[in-house]
Amino acid sequence: MRRPSRVNCARLSARLERLGQVGALPGGGVCRLALTDEDRKGRDLLVGWMRELGMAVLIDRIGNIFGTRPGRRPAPPLMIGSHIDTVKTGGLYDGALGVLTGLEVVETLDDLGVATDRPITVAAFTNEEGARFAPDMMGSLVHVGGMTVEAARAVVGIDGTTVGDALDGIGYAGLAPCGKPEVHSYLELHIEQGPILEAERVDIGVVEGVQAISWTEFVLEGASAHAGTTPMAMRRDAGLAAARAAVAVNDIVRAVGGQVGTVGSLVFEPNLVNVVAGKATFTVDLRNNDADALARVDAAVGLAVRGIAEDAGLALRSRILASFAPVGFDRDLIGEIEATTANLGLRSRRMVSGAGHDAQMMARICPAAMVFVPSARGLSHNIAEFTAPDDIAAGASVLFEMAVKLAGADMVGEEIA
Amino acid sequence: MRRPSRVNCARLSARLERLGQVGALPGGGVCRLALTDEDRKGRDLLVGWMRELGMAVLIDRIGNIFGTRPGRRPAPPLMIGSHIDTVKTGGLYDGALGVLTGLEVVETLDDLGVATDRPITVAAFTNEEGARFAPDMMGSLVHVGGMTVEAARAVVGIDGTTVGDALDGIGYAGLAPCGKPEVHSYLELHIEQGPILEAERVDIGVVEGVQAISWTEFVLEGASAHAGTTPMAMRRDAGLAAARAAVAVNDIVRAVGGQVGTVGSLVFEPNLVNVVAGKATFTVDLRNNDADALARVDAAVGLAVRGIAEDAGLALRSRILASFAPVGFDRDLIGEIEATTANLGLRSRRMVSGAGHDAQMMARICPAAMVFVPSARGLSHNIAEFTAPDDIAAGASVLFEMAVKLAGADMVGEEIA
Repeated sequence: MRRPSRVNCARLSARLERLGQVGALPGGGVCRLALTDEDRKGRDLLVGWMRELGMAVLIDRIGNIFGTRPGRRPAPPLMIGSHIDTVKTGGLYDGALGVLTGLEVVETLDDLGVATDRPITVAAFTNEEGARFAPDMMGSLVHVGGMTVEAARAVVGIDGTTVGDALDGIGYAGLAPCGKPEVHSYLELHIEQGPILEAERVDIGVVEGVQAISWTEFVLEGASAHAGTTPMAMRRDAGLAAARAAVAVNDIVRAVGGQVGTVGSLVFEPNLVNVVAGKATFTVDLRNNDADALARVDAAVGLAVRGIAEDAGLALRSRILASFAPVGFDRDLIGEIEATTANLGLRSRRMVSGAGHDAQMMARICPAAMVFVPSARGLSHNIAEFTAPDDIAAGASVLFEMAVKLAGADMVGEEIA
Repeated sequence: MRRPSRVNCARLSARLERLGQVGALPGGGVCRLALTDEDRKGRDLLVGWMRELGMAVLIDRIGNIFGTRPGRRPAPPLMIGSHIDTVKTGGLYDGALGVLTGLEVVETLDDLGVATDRPITVAAFTNEEGARFAPDMMGSLVHVGGMTVEAARAVVGIDGTTVGDALDGIGYAGLAPCGKPEVHSYLELHIEQGPILEAERVDIGVVEGVQAISWTEFVLEGASAHAGTTPMAMRRDAGLAAARAAVAVNDIVRAVGGQVGTVGSLVFEPNLVNVVAGKATFTVDLRNNDADALARVDAAVGLAVRGIAEDAGLALRSRILASFAPVGFDRDLIGEIEATTANLGLRSRRMVSGAGHDAQMMARICPAAMVFVPSARGLSHNIAEFTAPDDIAAGASVLFEMAVKLAGADMVGEEIA
């Protein structure tokens, strides 16, 4: 039997709805691309809530937001976090759930009048999605020292703006140095973004690790030419070659078990009905649990694209947009999450994340772990993204009980084994 | 031996250069998309030149510009025309050459103090390229009654603007009814936009007709989804299907002799590196001298795209953007152009145009013909578009001598057999 949740799920859902109104799309869903004005409004809302809860708010130079509830001792905090930026056609849950559950944990402790030994910091990391600026997980990557603030600020986005200019523009280039505060441990609640938990009717995914990720951008250049007067044999059609490459990527990926691969972005220039495309730019997103298998697929894709470009007489450039090794989360935390889940009367299974998450960056500097809740129809990065209130309650309960354990709270009469 | 030209080629080239500065691109070439502010500036320049030459200027409701030099009799005019809009990465010659040669014919007659029996009207038709608004050849199509002004004004462009709003916005929605004035005959000088004349070292292409054209837009809709967490077998990837379709179009076209086909525009949504594309929109441009062969290719393309959509579980919509039957130009005019070319000591050959032109619309209401001059390396719809001054001089000479014949001038001591 499922034990009743100690967190206020209605309050958590109300905050999810409220944040979802910032950048809301006409047909549902949200567009809150990193460092846009919508992102600023979302950040303002979050910082306001943190201040209402009496938390000390700190913004670092890459725009990461940290709100801290003090502990009884000046010890490194338990951090609960995620992100509030979205893709162009995102939902209400991806990222926002993890950050707002952090707030809910804090407010529930306040409601119960319970102090913790360690401080609890709620984190919202900058540009986790990478939809406007690559690489993704930028804020947490900078936080753990994997990229300098200067290098991150110099990144040019899909609209030609730099991260630095965008940060300055929305007023979220903070003064705090990156990499502070030191963290005791890190927890992240996230939607699964895949179909497995729903299909297997499991409440909680206990995440063992994150797949390796490789993102590459390819640029093919031929010659734009008149579509009516240029014989087929005399063309150097960059658009056709890019289409061939997208088909080839899919063929290569399908031949390898456990591999996923996507050409999600493809742009023709000049992109007109009656002009042979002189230039085509596309991205390849490859992921695999096995870093060696991913490297082989990456090499095969590079070879295929080069062959297609040569056959068509095109110039080819490529650059790596992101490359992350697979990550394993902390074994002790994984065990504690499983135990907590069982105590709450919830069904869980271990799983590997196909998506990248801020937790994988935090795992470089402290014990880190993730909890997944089901995504309806497996949909995410989609305006139809949905997680049922009961599932949110289950996930938030796990986070709350884990926070009580890790931050050290006196929960008289309420302690769970 | 080539006879000296009676037109002032330096003056014609200077006007081509001057008009080419309007919408000039940083790396060369021109972007003067129909009904943009650059188009307005080009129109203003043209109308100013017409007025300087004492021509009566008339703007009709679809924005076609007609400048008329009066004749001795109030007869239907000889019309010399083309267009001044360009594609996004266009050159200085496509369209502009035909319009500005019309001005040069008029100014040469003025210089020689020669009157013609018939008036001579120089025409610049709205939106010949179709690069912003489909169909192409819109202004001449409306002029000949093939499309109502109301239908044309309601067309929505690639940027969401209607033709009507754009026309009103640049102040070129004239008061004159469309379809006036009645025309005696129509001549258009144009660059070949293909490689044949240059390759065969021929001065003049005598155009027998225009290929049939079919433009179709296809929209594929699947489901946007997370690129990391959505197993390959559970995807409904509209981008991949569009890439397959582009490859299929090329395969079908290549199997048919004399056929050309192009997927020049392809747009993914949301077009992000880490999101499976939920929607993809692409265009197919098909052309053939043989209308029946074109219809068979069109059907094969439709069948292939439907099959690809069904295999991928995608919704499919399509709409015809343009569909024009092949056009044959006036046989008498073709013969007169050949004779004139020979008298001028120029080499000519007959050819079929792969591109659509305003002349094919005018051929519906009056005897019409076209004269081609070589395009360097066959390039057009490209910033490197170029036609040598000698070739321009040859083409303008043919137009001038044809105008003298058709409009009826007393050219004492200068008449060419």
